Amino acid sequence: MKSSNLPIGIFDSGVGGLTVFKAIRKLLPQENLVYFGDLARVPYGMKSPRLIQTYSLQIAKYLIEKSKVKALVVACNTASSTSLEILKENFNLPILGVILPGVEEALRLTRNGRIGVIGTRTTIKTGAYQKALLERRKGIEVFAYPTPLLVPLVEEGWFENRIARLVVREYLAPFIQAGVDTLILGCTHYPLLKKIMGKEGKGIMLVDSSQAVAQKLKEILEEKDLKGGEGKEEFYLTDTPQNFSFLFRVLLGREPENVKLVKLEELL
Amino acid sequence: MKSSNLPIGIFDSGVGGLTVFKAIRKLLPQENLVYFGDLARVPYGMKSPRLIQTYSLQIAKYLIEKSKVKALVVACNTASSTSLEILKENFNLPILGVILPGVEEALRLTRNGRIGVIGTRTTIKTGAYQKALLERRKGIEVFAYPTPLLVPLVEEGWFENRIARLVVREYLAPFIQAGVDTLILGCTHYPLLKKIMGKEGKGIMLVDSSQAVAQKLKEILEEKDLKGGEGKEEFYLTDTPQNFSFLFRVLLGREPENVKLVKLEELL
Repeated sequence: MKSSNLPIGIFDSGVGGLTVFKAIRKLLPQENLVYFGDLARVPYGMKSPRLIQTYSLQIAKYLIEKSKVKALVVACNTASSTSLEILKENFNLPILGVILPGVEEALRLTRNGRIGVIGTRTTIKTGAYQKALLERRKGIEVFAYPTPLLVPLVEEGWFENRIARLVVREYLAPFIQAGVDTLILGCTHYPLLKKIMGKEGKGIMLVDSSQAVAQKLKEILEEKDLKGGEGKEEFYLTDTPQNFSFLFRVLLGREPENVKLVKLEELL
Repeated sequence: MKSSNLPIGIFDSGVGGLTVFKAIRKLLPQENLVYFGDLARVPYGMKSPRLIQTYSLQIAKYLIEKSKVKALVVACNTASSTSLEILKENFNLPILGVILPGVEEALRLTRNGRIGVIGTRTTIKTGAYQKALLERRKGIEVFAYPTPLLVPLVEEGWFENRIARLVVREYLAPFIQAGVDTLILGCTHYPLLKKIMGKEGKGIMLVDSSQAVAQKLKEILEEKDLKGGEGKEEFYLTDTPQNFSFLFRVLLGREPENVKLVKLEELL
């Protein structure tokens, strides 16, 4: 196969990365895409950085060896914030995370220099967003809080019900109080709650990094002359709960094809 | 070692089983206990029954071969409702789940025959509680709903804050409306929310099966002449997030000793 026709690998702890998959598919309709969802071990957000590094290395190795991916997108903030460096040290291909594209967009958007970040407990604890923001622009104020109930809300498909609204309202209150004008959705699940956040957020601008990641990927492929493909798709999942298909339908408006179950043994 | 001095194995997907551990420690202070928490793959509640069976068989094998446990307590409702049969088919030692003890207590308590059950999505979907209740007493009415946000609440240590109260109120509303007088807490995490549930539950009796399981275990050990031990404790965890020690302190009022990290590779 012509190397430019090789697929792009996209991996996530579960289903949240489908927001990134959707953005990439839209911007790069021709590319072959392989999505890996680690549903057998989801969620990553409360697990230790070391364990998430182990999982990320296993999945990257699997995608590189088995699917010969020409580029790898870590479509999970927890994995991006803990494992991007170690992945780049171990594998020699373009590897993109979701942190920097979100940071750059937030810095473009903010007017008052007060930026909020929400994410899983582990993502916030690594300080990856806070460091990246302050390194790029001194003097801004960053407010970063974990919002651990949002992933289970999305995994349940609760985007607009009463509990979702109450939880979102509670989580946004400290940001409204702090006067932030820009909030980074530091988890790929969160864009599915954008509608509710828009209503409860009192004008705070929401940064969904999925489009920014897709744009960055496009630039890299052009730069390295790696564009190609026939629009094929494959999905590797380590478990098969119904919510993968459900969220795929919600986001993409169609059924996923070529879904394959991967046993954890194959990753070790 | 005298076989009656061998330990009792207690396993859970994560930290929720510590409520069962506590009840067993209280009733059987002399026994040696080995607790296994599968923190690397927690939670089980949305994963497929087949995957949970695989995990349960791996952990049972590990405890039986490595720790020579004389009895095994499946201190997780999701694992009990999906894997108890397959565990009994594969291993020859006393194996107890948490479903039946809870069912029997609910039937003892109810006066109006309207019993509620809350649990994870997978637990409720298996129908294990519903079947067990109706097999034992015809004519009762069972209302069973999944309450998937309660596990992340407890894993976060949110037992009494505003979000916990709102979520619990929302989840209890249909049971209050249906006029149930007895509610089975069909997940070992939920007893940690008992205080809030008591306040929001408008007099509904709450069934926490941990004490019933401990009582049943005691009877089995006496019956089979297996009582013994020196009160020792060991904890095997597949990841080491802080919330294990935190919940241990909350429940037991002391620090856990002999905590060991188990790599997933050792289970396969």
